[in-house]
Amino acid sequence: MSDQSSTEKDAYARAGVSIAAGNEAVSRYKSVLGAWRHPDQLDAIGGFGGVFRLPGDGERALVASADGVGTKILIAAELQRYDGVGRDLVNHCVNDILVVNATPMFFLDYFATGKLDPAVAAAVVEGCALACRAHDCALLGGETAEMPGLYAPGHFDLAGTIVGVVNVNDLPKPESVEPGDAIVGLPSVGLHTNGYSLARSLIPPQEWNAPFDGGTYADALLAEHPSYFNAVRAIQKVARVKTMAHITGGGLLENVPRTLPDDAKAIFEAARWSVPPIMAELVKRGQLDDTEKYRTLNMGVGYTLIVPFLDASKATAAVPGAKVVGWIEKREGNEPSVVIHP
Amino acid sequence: MSDQSSTEKDAYARAGVSIAAGNEAVSRYKSVLGAWRHPDQLDAIGGFGGVFRLPGDGERALVASADGVGTKILIAAELQRYDGVGRDLVNHCVNDILVVNATPMFFLDYFATGKLDPAVAAAVVEGCALACRAHDCALLGGETAEMPGLYAPGHFDLAGTIVGVVNVNDLPKPESVEPGDAIVGLPSVGLHTNGYSLARSLIPPQEWNAPFDGGTYADALLAEHPSYFNAVRAIQKVARVKTMAHITGGGLLENVPRTLPDDAKAIFEAARWSVPPIMAELVKRGQLDDTEKYRTLNMGVGYTLIVPFLDASKATAAVPGAKVVGWIEKREGNEPSVVIHP
Repeated sequence: MSDQSSTEKDAYARAGVSIAAGNEAVSRYKSVLGAWRHPDQLDAIGGFGGVFRLPGDGERALVASADGVGTKILIAAELQRYDGVGRDLVNHCVNDILVVNATPMFFLDYFATGKLDPAVAAAVVEGCALACRAHDCALLGGETAEMPGLYAPGHFDLAGTIVGVVNVNDLPKPESVEPGDAIVGLPSVGLHTNGYSLARSLIPPQEWNAPFDGGTYADALLAEHPSYFNAVRAIQKVARVKTMAHITGGGLLENVPRTLPDDAKAIFEAARWSVPPIMAELVKRGQLDDTEKYRTLNMGVGYTLIVPFLDASKATAAVPGAKVVGWIEKREGNEPSVVIHP
Repeated sequence: MSDQSSTEKDAYARAGVSIAAGNEAVSRYKSVLGAWRHPDQLDAIGGFGGVFRLPGDGERALVASADGVGTKILIAAELQRYDGVGRDLVNHCVNDILVVNATPMFFLDYFATGKLDPAVAAAVVEGCALACRAHDCALLGGETAEMPGLYAPGHFDLAGTIVGVVNVNDLPKPESVEPGDAIVGLPSVGLHTNGYSLARSLIPPQEWNAPFDGGTYADALLAEHPSYFNAVRAIQKVARVKTMAHITGGGLLENVPRTLPDDAKAIFEAARWSVPPIMAELVKRGQLDDTEKYRTLNMGVGYTLIVPFLDASKATAAVPGAKVVGWIEKREGNEPSVVIHP
């Protein structure tokens, strides 16, 4: 489907982000990393977090994930709204290791800027600290770097690494997913931490303070990336959860397949959930086609859980806003792994 | 000594880095983090790495540290020499957790750029992978972020987080340091990853390819931050090591005190070791006074170990280049914690 992939590239390319370069980098990393692999490193299901067997402990593994906030940081910097990005980052990291069922233990941040403003740095780190505390997770350390010449005045970057722990027996098993299983979706509240280069190209800074959806565009764009930790744990109390996906860059189309066996496909029905207004606005302004929108944006589903059909209603009853958004069917040959019906 | 601290500020300030802003950020972080502390978080000796008691394991703790490469990255980017910065970063992180005696388990990188060049990204990550492998440390994950608008063309940032493990009984005990102990220094090979904003202000890019010390300025500036892991383990086989310091930003003046009890001071004799030519050049060009040079640069000592006097000659015999660089004396009242004689 080469013409689909050239369309796919357009939305990102217009925003200055190259899918092809990203894919080539990943492929080069694989060849670099293929040269040697630590014997305690376990296969990371779906690749959301890395899994490392705890030496001398037959039961447990450590799970770690590194991430950034992407160009959401440029909107926060421009609007001088610094408190949210730390929470965005920690919650993003929490969700990434939650996919393999890990419970957070500690987090470390990296804050880099051209000219250090201690009040800005402290506001950002305080956001991290609050989100860590909400997960009983230590903010164990971090690095603050003042790098004149690398960052423009007022700009900064923020990244972080989370480390959690999981019982090896609790690692999700994609091979347990089977036709008839239900896909439960947890609602997103906005872009979370993906699609911001596209959003910035479609909604220019001079509009950010204009009214939108009961607030401003800025409010909608900076809405906090939620943690799904409590929701997932609540569902796991009443339903058997087979695999999960955090819907980040790549959207439903690229994240859900990482949690499926080769012979299964995920069928979504978009009418089953609602699209946050900011995403509908981006789709309209950018005239994004289905592939573009479901690959660039979460489109309203922030996290998915695959459960047996009979557990689906218990799962959705456990968490406000949780909905059955699709189901699993048998996948034949080269069929796509994800199909999204209107 | 207010006039000393205004002098101290000059070398950094000329280079666009503010010590005062850094100190104020640290003080604000303390108040942010003081609000809550995870019960499994142990006091981090000297603060080089964070220490977290491994839940359900009475003997071991995890040690983690996050760091970047600083503006050395701008020299590497300008000269398109990408292979070294990954090794710089991993070795820096290894040394930081080695200070509390931890053995590396895994590392995660964060690579951010404005326009992703897969070959550059792969060269940087390969450097990380090679340095990880040299320490039997998994490169467990990472994040590559393409962030148009945040980084100028050709620029990138690189940060990383390392996680290691230590037996709680092996954590260094600063209170065991006493007058008469020897300070063993391991030689530095150059700036490592500190002082680059100053170096860039004193040695402009048009000189980087000019001959210097048998190579070029670029060679001297980009000399690889060494790992002291094998040297330290070799010394620990033959000598009792009480505490250690990784001499990074802040130099001997700020890093060594973190490894001393309040009633001890470290006396160094600079004649006992040699200063790498690139640092002598910076001191000359910048007319740096003693306080400036020993706070901004490592000045030839990359790592220090405090050992009982009787173990000193065994320690220095175990590692080529290791030298007794000073000793411990009793500190009274408000005496400085570090004194460096010519």
